[in-house]
Amino acid sequence: MADPTLKPVKADTIDVWDHEADVVVAGFGIAGVAASIEAARMGADVLVLERLGGWGGAAAMSGGFIYLGGGTALQHALGFDDSVENMKTFMKAALGPGVDEAKIDLYCEGSVEHFNWLVDAGVEFDESFWGEPGWEPPHGEGLMFSGGENSAPFNTLVAPSPRGHLPRRAIAADAEQAGGFMLMKPLVDTAERLGVRAEYDVRVQSLIVDDDGSVVGVIAKQYGKRVAVRARQGVVLATGSFAYNDAMLRDHVPRILGRPAASIESHDGRAIEMSQAIGAATAHMDAAEVAIFCDPQLLARGILVNMRGQRYIPEDTYASRIAQETLLRQGGDAFLVIDDEAYEAALQSVSTSAVMRGTPAWVCESVEELEAEMGIPAGGLRSTVDLYNRYAESSSDPFLHKKAEWVRPLKTPIGAYDLRGMVGGFTLGGLKTSVDSEVLHVSGEPIPGLYAAGRCTSGVCAGGYASGASLGDGSFFGRRAGISASKQTPRH
Amino acid sequence: MADPTLKPVKADTIDVWDHEADVVVAGFGIAGVAASIEAARMGADVLVLERLGGWGGAAAMSGGFIYLGGGTALQHALGFDDSVENMKTFMKAALGPGVDEAKIDLYCEGSVEHFNWLVDAGVEFDESFWGEPGWEPPHGEGLMFSGGENSAPFNTLVAPSPRGHLPRRAIAADAEQAGGFMLMKPLVDTAERLGVRAEYDVRVQSLIVDDDGSVVGVIAKQYGKRVAVRARQGVVLATGSFAYNDAMLRDHVPRILGRPAASIESHDGRAIEMSQAIGAATAHMDAAEVAIFCDPQLLARGILVNMRGQRYIPEDTYASRIAQETLLRQGGDAFLVIDDEAYEAALQSVSTSAVMRGTPAWVCESVEELEAEMGIPAGGLRSTVDLYNRYAESSSDPFLHKKAEWVRPLKTPIGAYDLRGMVGGFTLGGLKTSVDSEVLHVSGEPIPGLYAAGRCTSGVCAGGYASGASLGDGSFFGRRAGISASKQTPRH
Repeated sequence: MADPTLKPVKADTIDVWDHEADVVVAGFGIAGVAASIEAARMGADVLVLERLGGWGGAAAMSGGFIYLGGGTALQHALGFDDSVENMKTFMKAALGPGVDEAKIDLYCEGSVEHFNWLVDAGVEFDESFWGEPGWEPPHGEGLMFSGGENSAPFNTLVAPSPRGHLPRRAIAADAEQAGGFMLMKPLVDTAERLGVRAEYDVRVQSLIVDDDGSVVGVIAKQYGKRVAVRARQGVVLATGSFAYNDAMLRDHVPRILGRPAASIESHDGRAIEMSQAIGAATAHMDAAEVAIFCDPQLLARGILVNMRGQRYIPEDTYASRIAQETLLRQGGDAFLVIDDEAYEAALQSVSTSAVMRGTPAWVCESVEELEAEMGIPAGGLRSTVDLYNRYAESSSDPFLHKKAEWVRPLKTPIGAYDLRGMVGGFTLGGLKTSVDSEVLHVSGEPIPGLYAAGRCTSGVCAGGYASGASLGDGSFFGRRAGISASKQTPRH
Repeated sequence: MADPTLKPVKADTIDVWDHEADVVVAGFGIAGVAASIEAARMGADVLVLERLGGWGGAAAMSGGFIYLGGGTALQHALGFDDSVENMKTFMKAALGPGVDEAKIDLYCEGSVEHFNWLVDAGVEFDESFWGEPGWEPPHGEGLMFSGGENSAPFNTLVAPSPRGHLPRRAIAADAEQAGGFMLMKPLVDTAERLGVRAEYDVRVQSLIVDDDGSVVGVIAKQYGKRVAVRARQGVVLATGSFAYNDAMLRDHVPRILGRPAASIESHDGRAIEMSQAIGAATAHMDAAEVAIFCDPQLLARGILVNMRGQRYIPEDTYASRIAQETLLRQGGDAFLVIDDEAYEAALQSVSTSAVMRGTPAWVCESVEELEAEMGIPAGGLRSTVDLYNRYAESSSDPFLHKKAEWVRPLKTPIGAYDLRGMVGGFTLGGLKTSVDSEVLHVSGEPIPGLYAAGRCTSGVCAGGYASGASLGDGSFFGRRAGISASKQTPRH
């Protein structure tokens, strides 16, 4: 499917500029709004080009977690100690291998200030903590563990501190006004107050370059018409991931093909490819955040086994870590084995993920019956349950170190959820950028005039993921993109 | 580490061309020699630029396997049935997910002809088969299973046929004249007879492009001096992998950082990056072939367990599959548990990998003692051995389907090899090319004048690997690169 329209266009071939601004931002999600605010505050005339009919992007549809720490006001108010060093150590261990250490260092060092910046811009966080297993807190609590910090193997590496900061839900909120919307709304309001302009239904197509290779604008489609948009200072790309570009998935992340999750159709990878067309470097294009469609209140109380009946992860860690491990190491297939008593306890618990509770595929009077029903050769599950129970009598789990509070011998009746194929993901790889959000050429030099942030870039996550790291680095490095672009000397 | 010298150079800035040819081939390994032969046969004046002081590349240092099938003369002579369809089915299942199906189809359909082409060029294959576990056949046998075709899960998917074709060793061969050398020597002789010229100690630096974006030559360093090399018809890149470029590994394959294997220092990724600088697309940059430093004669007779004492792969499959699984799913760490009787049998067996036999790290009188020594929590290995032995009494392995001939109850004394960290790899990802070996721009269009083959491209392997697939696609698509380049109308 050749598409020559993503090739760069020479500036001297443009007769009419349909739009002009100092800083042109492509995408009005979290990275785009953060870039816009900072560029406007620097005095730039900012124009946002958004593909959809309104602002928000994937961020507004998300839960809204922002991964922050090192001692934010919210962490302090709720009595949690954290340090920049502990945050760095955790992120480098949990988000690798191959993390961009300079980005993580800066991100951690600037995290408290970034929290304050969000609050100043009108984002509210409830002073409450949710300590139960879950994808998100159920009552709009403002803080939660969202990366497995309090579970093995990380809870023995550094003192765990919760860093998933969640914006306060709107009063009488419906589902669409939960976290992500309440993050985006005040930021967009702030941007508009600062005079940021936006054009909707505009799809960026390619970059416009000067004779010296500088980016001076973008070609886009607006209501089906080709338009040329001039950027006097710089272009900021903030168009999200490539989760909905099947050709790119096949070349870079084939394991999530046909498994989209937590993403939107406008995540077409265009910004990545049109930048590659002028020599931009990419990083970690195989990385994916993964979701597993099961309530963590169930997961923590059961044992998660693969097709041979073997356990492979502490079931009380944050669910996206479980999902990644399931996809990467078990080929996407797993069963959750849970006894009647634990199942009933999970049903009584409070969770935002009750919709993911479903019902077990099998319920049996014995483990032998259950393994037969599941198609596991005789003894496969039996030996796992025996070994688990042997230590569960004393609430320990020497193999995977699930925390004592969740370890209890499995009894009968006993059942299993069939989680085969119940994982999906979105992409984390993308353009390689400097800590100042300059898009880097494969030569290692910044491409003049071109900046990027959010999921069209490779951010703080290399292979691993913590919930909030994506909105976190999108907003943090989005701000830096806006600042970097607006520092350029305007071209007239 | 910015390196602006990899950016493209405009043709009109070149005053003096230091070398000229119709087709300029960068790299004199397997892909380069195949391209040279075909281009010369098409009537082109061919110049090869090689970074080292002599021809051979990684190919000449390798075992020499070429993955071929669909009914080659050698397969027939040795009584093996094979079909193009079976070969396609196996390769698509074993080398994915995300394989380039068009490349595999063409490769399988052309495999018999490609075997004959190699023979015509002087490559000899001994009419003998080696059916024992091993990395390579010990006496220069010409055919062997090299991709796990005869092991689970593939042996029930399609009828297995051996496809690892190994060039005959030289008489009184020393180690350096084994398979890979004996593949390269006759091909280089053939190229020289056809008038192919070569310049050594030449490192390619960047591409030279015309005003219309066509590639018309390369900039290189020869004995420290910058030289301009003109290609009247086309440039073929055949410079190998990026296994020795740490910065690229960190961005794309961090899991093999510091674990190089089966590769050479000239595999610097330069051809990939200098092509990306003009918009070339890449694919599967995270893919790696992996080796595990253990004799397959030992592996097949033992059980391979992870840090929790769990089995995870049929131990009788081809060793590079074991290595990939160990690195990808067990974090690079494993133990081989083997009893005294099996250990002695392995020591008596014939293998080219006797150097990888070493000695067990622990030998004990009981499984309980052994698991304690290995640091596996009590019961972890015991339950695995019990479950294995329960079925081994009847020579079956319902969990991982190791073949009956290798399944025998484990007795005492019993020991274990410590294989933690004993894996290493080389990269399989690279430039995205068409089936005619044209380098594709991210727009999907071929870049005029630029061709590539071998490990600087993404070939028939997406994530998986079979030994011989790399020399196989390097030679097969190298030929196509030479043909495509020499079909271009010469520029004067």
